[in-house]
Amino acid sequence: MEKKILFPQIGGLVHGGDYNPDQWLDRPDILEEDVRMMKKAGVNCVTLGVFSWAAYEPEEGNFHFEWMEKIIEKLYQNGIYTILSTPSGARPAWLDGRYIEAMRVDSRGVRDHHGKRHNHCMTSERFREKVAVIDRMLAEHLGTHPGVILYHISNELGGECFCPRCVQKFQMYLAERYEYDIDRLNAEWWTSFWSHHYNTFSEIEPPFENGETSVMGLNMEWKRFTTWNMNNFMQFEIDVLRSVTPDIPVTTNFMGLFGGLDYRKMAPKLDVISWDNYPCYHNDWETFTETMSDTAFNHAVMRSMKRGKPFMMMESTPSLVNWHKVNKLKRPGVHKLSCVQAVACGSDSVQYFQWRKGRGSYEQFHGAVVDHAGTDDSRVFRDVAEAGELLKKLAPVAGTTVSTRAALLFDWDNRWAIWDVKALGQETKKYERTCIGIWQEFMKLGIDMDVVGSDEDLSRYDVVVAPMLYLLQPGTADNLRAFVERGGQLLATYFTGYVDDAQLCYLGGFPGDGLKELFGIVSEEIDSYYPSDRNGIAMKDGSRWEVVDYAEILKVQDAEVLGTYTDDFYQGSAAVTCKSHGKGNAYYVAARTSAGEMRPLFEKMLADAGISVRKLPEGVEYHVRSGEEGSYEFYLNCNTEPVKIAGVNGLDMVTDREVREEMTLPGYGVAVIRQ
Amino acid sequence: MEKKILFPQIGGLVHGGDYNPDQWLDRPDILEEDVRMMKKAGVNCVTLGVFSWAAYEPEEGNFHFEWMEKIIEKLYQNGIYTILSTPSGARPAWLDGRYIEAMRVDSRGVRDHHGKRHNHCMTSERFREKVAVIDRMLAEHLGTHPGVILYHISNELGGECFCPRCVQKFQMYLAERYEYDIDRLNAEWWTSFWSHHYNTFSEIEPPFENGETSVMGLNMEWKRFTTWNMNNFMQFEIDVLRSVTPDIPVTTNFMGLFGGLDYRKMAPKLDVISWDNYPCYHNDWETFTETMSDTAFNHAVMRSMKRGKPFMMMESTPSLVNWHKVNKLKRPGVHKLSCVQAVACGSDSVQYFQWRKGRGSYEQFHGAVVDHAGTDDSRVFRDVAEAGELLKKLAPVAGTTVSTRAALLFDWDNRWAIWDVKALGQETKKYERTCIGIWQEFMKLGIDMDVVGSDEDLSRYDVVVAPMLYLLQPGTADNLRAFVERGGQLLATYFTGYVDDAQLCYLGGFPGDGLKELFGIVSEEIDSYYPSDRNGIAMKDGSRWEVVDYAEILKVQDAEVLGTYTDDFYQGSAAVTCKSHGKGNAYYVAARTSAGEMRPLFEKMLADAGISVRKLPEGVEYHVRSGEEGSYEFYLNCNTEPVKIAGVNGLDMVTDREVREEMTLPGYGVAVIRQ
Amino acid sequence: MEKKILFPQIGGLVHGGDYNPDQWLDRPDILEEDVRMMKKAGVNCVTLGVFSWAAYEPEEGNFHFEWMEKIIEKLYQNGIYTILSTPSGARPAWLDGRYIEAMRVDSRGVRDHHGKRHNHCMTSERFREKVAVIDRMLAEHLGTHPGVILYHISNELGGECFCPRCVQKFQMYLAERYEYDIDRLNAEWWTSFWSHHYNTFSEIEPPFENGETSVMGLNMEWKRFTTWNMNNFMQFEIDVLRSVTPDIPVTTNFMGLFGGLDYRKMAPKLDVISWDNYPCYHNDWETFTETMSDTAFNHAVMRSMKRGKPFMMMESTPSLVNWHKVNKLKRPGVHKLSCVQAVACGSDSVQYFQWRKGRGSYEQFHGAVVDHAGTDDSRVFRDVAEAGELLKKLAPVAGTTVSTRAALLFDWDNRWAIWDVKALGQETKKYERTCIGIWQEFMKLGIDMDVVGSDEDLSRYDVVVAPMLYLLQPGTADNLRAFVERGGQLLATYFTGYVDDAQLCYLGGFPGDGLKELFGIVSEEIDSYYPSDRNGIAMKDGSRWEVVDYAEILKVQDAEVLGTYTDDFYQGSAAVTCKSHGKGNAYYVAARTSAGEMRPLFEKMLADAGISVRKLPEGVEYHVRSGEEGSYEFYLNCNTEPVKIAGVNGLDMVTDREVREEMTLPGYGVAVIRQ
Repeated sequence: MEKKILFPQIGGLVHGGDYNPDQWLDRPDILEEDVRMMKKAGVNCVTLGVFSWAAYEPEEGNFHFEWMEKIIEKLYQNGIYTILSTPSGARPAWLDGRYIEAMRVDSRGVRDHHGKRHNHCMTSERFREKVAVIDRMLAEHLGTHPGVILYHISNELGGECFCPRCVQKFQMYLAERYEYDIDRLNAEWWTSFWSHHYNTFSEIEPPFENGETSVMGLNMEWKRFTTWNMNNFMQFEIDVLRSVTPDIPVTTNFMGLFGGLDYRKMAPKLDVISWDNYPCYHNDWETFTETMSDTAFNHAVMRSMKRGKPFMMMESTPSLVNWHKVNKLKRPGVHKLSCVQAVACGSDSVQYFQWRKGRGSYEQFHGAVVDHAGTDDSRVFRDVAEAGELLKKLAPVAGTTVSTRAALLFDWDNRWAIWDVKALGQETKKYERTCIGIWQEFMKLGIDMDVVGSDEDLSRYDVVVAPMLYLLQPGTADNLRAFVERGGQLLATYFTGYVDDAQLCYLGGFPGDGLKELFGIVSEEIDSYYPSDRNGIAMKDGSRWEVVDYAEILKVQDAEVLGTYTDDFYQGSAAVTCKSHGKGNAYYVAARTSAGEMRPLFEKMLADAGISVRKLPEGVEYHVRSGEEGSYEFYLNCNTEPVKIAGVNGLDMVTDREVREEMTLPGYGVAVIRQ
Repeated sequence: MEKKILFPQIGGLVHGGDYNPDQWLDRPDILEEDVRMMKKAGVNCVTLGVFSWAAYEPEEGNFHFEWMEKIIEKLYQNGIYTILSTPSGARPAWLDGRYIEAMRVDSRGVRDHHGKRHNHCMTSERFREKVAVIDRMLAEHLGTHPGVILYHISNELGGECFCPRCVQKFQMYLAERYEYDIDRLNAEWWTSFWSHHYNTFSEIEPPFENGETSVMGLNMEWKRFTTWNMNNFMQFEIDVLRSVTPDIPVTTNFMGLFGGLDYRKMAPKLDVISWDNYPCYHNDWETFTETMSDTAFNHAVMRSMKRGKPFMMMESTPSLVNWHKVNKLKRPGVHKLSCVQAVACGSDSVQYFQWRKGRGSYEQFHGAVVDHAGTDDSRVFRDVAEAGELLKKLAPVAGTTVSTRAALLFDWDNRWAIWDVKALGQETKKYERTCIGIWQEFMKLGIDMDVVGSDEDLSRYDVVVAPMLYLLQPGTADNLRAFVERGGQLLATYFTGYVDDAQLCYLGGFPGDGLKELFGIVSEEIDSYYPSDRNGIAMKDGSRWEVVDYAEILKVQDAEVLGTYTDDFYQGSAAVTCKSHGKGNAYYVAARTSAGEMRPLFEKMLADAGISVRKLPEGVEYHVRSGEEGSYEFYLNCNTEPVKIAGVNGLDMVTDREVREEMTLPGYGVAVIRQ
Repeated sequence: MEKKILFPQIGGLVHGGDYNPDQWLDRPDILEEDVRMMKKAGVNCVTLGVFSWAAYEPEEGNFHFEWMEKIIEKLYQNGIYTILSTPSGARPAWLDGRYIEAMRVDSRGVRDHHGKRHNHCMTSERFREKVAVIDRMLAEHLGTHPGVILYHISNELGGECFCPRCVQKFQMYLAERYEYDIDRLNAEWWTSFWSHHYNTFSEIEPPFENGETSVMGLNMEWKRFTTWNMNNFMQFEIDVLRSVTPDIPVTTNFMGLFGGLDYRKMAPKLDVISWDNYPCYHNDWETFTETMSDTAFNHAVMRSMKRGKPFMMMESTPSLVNWHKVNKLKRPGVHKLSCVQAVACGSDSVQYFQWRKGRGSYEQFHGAVVDHAGTDDSRVFRDVAEAGELLKKLAPVAGTTVSTRAALLFDWDNRWAIWDVKALGQETKKYERTCIGIWQEFMKLGIDMDVVGSDEDLSRYDVVVAPMLYLLQPGTADNLRAFVERGGQLLATYFTGYVDDAQLCYLGGFPGDGLKELFGIVSEEIDSYYPSDRNGIAMKDGSRWEVVDYAEILKVQDAEVLGTYTDDFYQGSAAVTCKSHGKGNAYYVAARTSAGEMRPLFEKMLADAGISVRKLPEGVEYHVRSGEEGSYEFYLNCNTEPVKIAGVNGLDMVTDREVREEMTLPGYGVAVIRQ
């Protein structure tokens, strides 16, 4: 495998974070001290200018980039590179005062007042004009500096706008989407229901809260349009930058499983994927190990957007945040553990929000490397410096990648459809948790599944799990069938294949579009359970699984029955089935059980696919990155107690010691074994 | 008793439901199949055109009824009759686009966008014009068809509108209501409080959420006006239809205890009462038997609106709905049980929403007779067909009625007043639950009480229970007094007779308007309990009742004390009293206890009234319908286990077997004994 | 100590309440009866005209005061004085109809409709004009009557207005506040964060809900402005009244810890402090003793606003209210107990809302002296008459005051800053509960602490506790330092001295502004706990405290360590410290514990300050009022059982018996010992 080095200038892993010197321009002593401490902390890169519009352009047309240029230069002189952000994430007051169309209109039709951030109208021409000007100037004045290695477009893009301009753009989008055929739209949106027929595209309004919210097709297209329009805005910013500095790569910082945008549609426009990672460590609703493995799933989602290339952890906190329900400190060791996890999962960076706490306003208590005390004599600073040291040791890992032959189907359209579907139980749909639970069960077997969309080519995989694949994209069923027919191991669950891409139900029995035949079953009814309801599945292997939330009643056509319901009126009927297609197998699990109970199925699928598993002690994460010159095994002990791990051989880059067969990791300890 | 046959054409009970062929006009094969399957399922009637406006009039003034005429004709040819709906329940997009006044304004003063359904302004002249046109055309083109047996006005009427037209209409309504005497309004609304005096009717606004919500009289009149205005709209539709087809009866589908409209004011305008019945079977907050008996109460409310005449269950689901918190399947047997319950309680129809699931939009997963699979080989279809068979057997029941000598007073104005009153505990008022609980206790004694308004003639009853009759209509006190004086058994509770029709408190002691004298007590104070507070009542008969939520402190004038408080500072004072007036008795229960604890009182009242009770095993419902040729006893086993029932004699129309003294009903089993 | 007699005319304590004869003008018999019963109940003063605008001025410019004059005169003839309210608390419908600018605009930018009360725009010139006219007429027609002893400005002032006039006034306020220096505002609001820079004051909008809510400085200044503007409005009303009747004192009725206004800024404009007291007695979330002592804290807050002068309890209920979650009756004895508590805590009045229940509208079921029955033969009336008798006996107490050498710092700005700070745990900040808990622990030691702002002179105190003093006003740190240096005993806690008056964090380590040196510690990090998290503190004296919610990690400079953490990674590090400055001591408690656990510290502080404590049986409150001629010890038994109290000597004014060393108080009993 070829290494994909993101930033040859850095010569290793990126360590740094958001830096806001614009808040301290009247304190040159502090700016001086920052550089000294950055070097002490092993920082080699900072992100600049995320919210600097008012500093660059304090009045319309009056530009000041010289102050920032000096800072970039000074950092560069000290070996610290710059990720340069476009400032569109927050608008100056003068701009909103003059161009009110830049401010969004909410789902009740009310235009926002100036304030907060991330709330521009994506459509407004006047706003785009202003952005074009500032971005071009930015590229010209700062982007040409050799210290600048990456552009960071805006910040944490998200949100919707219901202004008249956006409504009109939505109508135009729909007209193109449905090829100017309003009848096709009516058919796909099933508008004969409740007299919802449209005569023209210009009659269609977005789903205003006090308007049309009962047409599934409309709701979905509004979400797709919002992604499309945000992507359009992002591309517009990229184009401006590229016109001046075509060689600087671009990213934008994603937010994990944020549901407002389909990141998979945006990823192709970016040179590198990056995201902001803020887990609630040490919380009271899950174990620490679970928090860690939720984070691992998020890393996998990000990683899978550009397979074969490292991503970046653009933001994280060295200690705590200020917006969780309870803002608790990271316990000693956890900072290092979480940094190494990011790298283990495919990140080539560990970056913080932020370098130094600002004295005032909304995030004055968000964790930072340097606290208000301003000293490097703090627990947090020492933790960061320690991480910096370790990242230097791990420099050879940069450019290597995580690769796998197993994939989980996790689809944004499917999420949205499940969120919106009027069926099942209102509070128990839990699509994400269901996917995450299964993914984590594979991780416990040492398998870092890719997390892919249902329209992706599955030919690179041998094991695919597609939980609750309610909505089938065009081609998805064919994709799955082809996968099984060439020998793949596929597992699907209850609530699969009910609707097509337009959210129209398949006629003739679920799962539709040919999947009945693939799995050899028909799902006749789906039963939803109250939280206290339970059923069971008696598996042929003698095990018994517990059923919660959902149970489908199947008619088996030509599948083997692996498990049957133990209770209720469908007692004895099929709950788990498998239909073989040559070497390929299509498993169907008709009811919700814990992922842990399904593990034997997963192990069989992996075994049949010839993928070897790596079972580890409870609470130990295992990830592998590989490159041309070999691979790196990461072991993360999420327990507070030491654990012994067998079967480890190679050089531990953390301790610089050779491991032979067995090693002991301390509580929260990490090892990176080079082979 | 004369039989009241609703539809001689049908020759028995109605079996059918909503049918939306407009969603399948491009699939003649499906329309064909529908007819075949309807006949197989024993369907003899369908409801057409509920939301067909856009199909009838796709563009303003461009009408198409021919497609529907063909469908009505085809169904008619196959022995299936039509209930024809006016399409005003949802407006086409073109209409809202052109006549924005048709869309409602909410309680914040914001006009809705086009969308959803059931949300027209009841006042808008332009909207009424459009409705008049479509309704007249409908009657002319379709209403004249011999297959049409009933008109169904709009759909599930409800909601309020705060638009300027409605505000003005409200002012005119008030002027008439108060005979153009603003001083009278000020006096009745007690506007000297908080300087709320009005100088003219034109100063009065409805209770906008961000306006005047603290005047009880205003709040109540707004509710009365909303009923009045909705009724006015409904009558307007009826008038249009009658002008063309005067002989077709009309209904509209009510929604049980829906609190937005006083259905008792609307009932006189309808030829037959119908309602939509969607219980949450098998839920986790009550037993199945309780769910069933809540439904029985709702049936009784509907039945009592037109005593001596059957009503219709216009909608219900053959399996599940899609809008409950948890959408659970009906267990086997429950469909038949719930169908027979409707008939037992006085319905002459079992109708579904809907015949066939639509492929898309809001209700695509609402249960239907025919699922997306499109087959009659399904559990649900078989259940429906079985019900169809049974209903045919029960044809002789059609036109018979439920009659009773006991009544429960349950008043819409009183509900609204209790909801709005600023007193007691905010979360423990529970007027409806209190009434339902008592009604159900009588049902367990085999008594199907009528549920009547407080202004109704009580001369047909011998036992009346009037729980929490906080608000007294003019004449109600006289009504109750006359009832007792002619020998009736009356029971009232805490929170009786506090305010008059204008919600002004009675001066001189509660209960007011002469009820102090009727009951022989004065209620000096009412204590409200926190959920953990408890008291007790020691009854003279030695039993002890538990007190929760409310306890009045009485001064006894000339009543017999039947029970006294066991605790707190009013320990030993009267809690249950009775004052006799000849054979009549006026009971007063001053505190909230469970209905079950009050049962001995109810039994005594029934005994004194000479009404015999029919005690049945736990979980078995008993109802009787009678007609000229005899009566039909219905036994419904709400248990999953079989029960033996003694004292049954006659022909069981379900099994076609003669029963002698004892029968065993299987779990969820039913029997209909003809005598 | 000189006595501060509020109303020499009364010659003792005020007993009375709100009286609304305008609701009964058509019932002269009732007005007659009122006077008779008032005398029977020992009422010597009533509050008139709180909501009488529509009665005074039924149409614009058409005035009627004669009816009220007759009532004042009649009461006066019967020895009952009048507190006369300005009617600005609610506007007539005609006024809002004509001057819509009088109605407020909410935080979404929507103008209210006419209705409710307390919702005028404080800025509207037209509204002020109308108020000026009515207030002047009121003073001229009624204020000159000898029966009028006090003006009551408006009613329960509160709320915000976001109308364009208020926005502009806010901008002008800011311009003056920041001396027309927008750069200073930008610096103090830290607007370099998120590009929030302002170029001019006219760009600034208040924190609209859908606008700028993320700038702490803006949020705080909006709260300060709202107080300023309300104060400005109140002063405007006072000025009008003073211009006619300069000698009548003024008050307005506060609402305890209401957070919308900084009452301490308003107090100087008033001649006497008064407040409305509505505890939830007998609730289910705390003991009765706790409810009582919460009330005692509120009394202390009010008392401390004008030290050395009695305040008034302007409103309370003789029985129950109608707006609590559960409106429960006061148990027998509780009325007397609560009346005496008010006096014990420094009130020279016991007043009710209201004298007689109105028949209709929002408060028709709010407790009153005279119920709808209209009789004096009721438990409540007898309780009130009994209280009237007792208050007569306690006449000599009038004008005496509560004095103390201990104070609790409780600051409105600090409250607002803590509410708004984005840090800690969102639901566990509990600033008020923390302060109240500590205050109550001192009360259990017989110490009635003053409750003072952080800018107040501390030279009159020897013990000061300043919990969670997150925000330091300019001079506060100096104030505290001077206090300790002259021998004071000071205790501060976690979350002290993080930000200055502008909410900018102190640089160089917390607590800032010199407090690090005063306490001899630096707080390096603050850990927030989930509700199930616990830690402990091992105290040098062997006791062990439990830690919840918050724990700071300290670096000790030169303080003595009194206690250390028992768990977690900061186990063994300092949790409680003390640094001595001569006789003065500065204690720092770095974590949240119960106030009860801290009691030994409090006792030590009091002992070192030479303040003797008075420990009493559980559930007994002790307060002392003193004047020139001696002091009055109040003992309140909050238990339902009798208690023996030792060490009591003097005349019990309640029983008129001499007590020697020991007395027994019955359940809910009171004693007032004159010495």
